[in-house]
Amino acid sequence: MSDIAPPVAALIEEFAKLPGVGLKTAQRLTFFILRSPTDQARRLAEAIMRVKESIVYCSRCFNITETDPCPICSNANRERDVICVVEEPLDVLALEKTGVYKGLYHVLHGALSPMNGIGRKDLRIDELLTRLQDDAIHEIILATNPGFEGDYTASFIKNEIKGSVRNANLRVTSLARGLPIGGDLEYADEGTLSRALEGRRDL
Amino acid sequence: MSDIAPPVAALIEEFAKLPGVGLKTAQRLTFFILRSPTDQARRLAEAIMRVKESIVYCSRCFNITETDPCPICSNANRERDVICVVEEPLDVLALEKTGVYKGLYHVLHGALSPMNGIGRKDLRIDELLTRLQDDAIHEIILATNPGFEGDYTASFIKNEIKGSVRNANLRVTSLARGLPIGGDLEYADEGTLSRALEGRRDL
Repeated sequence: MSDIAPPVAALIEEFAKLPGVGLKTAQRLTFFILRSPTDQARRLAEAIMRVKESIVYCSRCFNITETDPCPICSNANRERDVICVVEEPLDVLALEKTGVYKGLYHVLHGALSPMNGIGRKDLRIDELLTRLQDDAIHEIILATNPGFEGDYTASFIKNEIKGSVRNANLRVTSLARGLPIGGDLEYADEGTLSRALEGRRDL
Repeated sequence: MSDIAPPVAALIEEFAKLPGVGLKTAQRLTFFILRSPTDQARRLAEAIMRVKESIVYCSRCFNITETDPCPICSNANRERDVICVVEEPLDVLALEKTGVYKGLYHVLHGALSPMNGIGRKDLRIDELLTRLQDDAIHEIILATNPGFEGDYTASFIKNEIKGSVRNANLRVTSLARGLPIGGDLEYADEGTLSRALEGRRDL
């Protein structure tokens, strides 16, 4: 980066630290900022700082929130006997958009991954088990991502529940696997197609 | 974006205004910021503001710079009789990295594009013509991007020079077109291959 003004080099460097942003993209973003109105650039800079200053994790479900407990945990109209366990806050967003689920959540903040050194202490698993000791919980939906790490995490949690949770009423479920809506059968991978066959239903 | 904390929604929205960043990417970037140390997020926010506060355009070549004139224009060791005309500041960077070019630059800040309503008044063409009235300039290299708009801009500037610049010594050149180094002949498009044939040289 010889001959480039230091503030420009610094911004390229910072942008390049973002996930999925290589050097070329970081350059493009930097020159976009250079050309955009100062107001727009300031809004981005302020939004970054505001997120760091005002967002905390909910002490119950560990979703991101401005208030603790979060709006979902403190909403009296949600079904309080079911907890949906997800890997990331974005998963909560995706489920909320469906409008179908009315229960509570628990955000693990990742999936178990021995390969990447992510163990149970890195996730909010113990906090989940504590929540499940409450007899009022009747169902836990393990909605981790379909795939090796997500499935491993779900079966790990299921075993932990069996081993340590004294809650006779608790039903452990997972999301259905099968063909995605709008997906094309001929392009479905073998795993998806096998699960779609296994889970077939009478019409 | 219901049920998402307003500061998070705001940051997603600001990220999504960046070029090439859709809603999904903006969400990923936002959650990356949420998870990263506050110091790192602050460095990004401050780099954005610093670029807006400290970077100006060089009044001679219109490259971006912290000082006016820019380090290249004010460098006594550069060859002052040749000007390389490029579309964007990033092009200056790319040419500087080669280490081959020792002359001056002129940044147009775009290419003529009747389709997108970008005319000569939107670019730094008049400023270029004024610079060329100086008899000390012996060569101008039109290094616009190879492609319709870049070629159109180069030929437009060439005609303007013919029509209005009184500088008998001025040579107008453009960069060689041909096969890119490391490129595969069988994957080269027809235009590139035609230009490579036309420009063939004795070995």
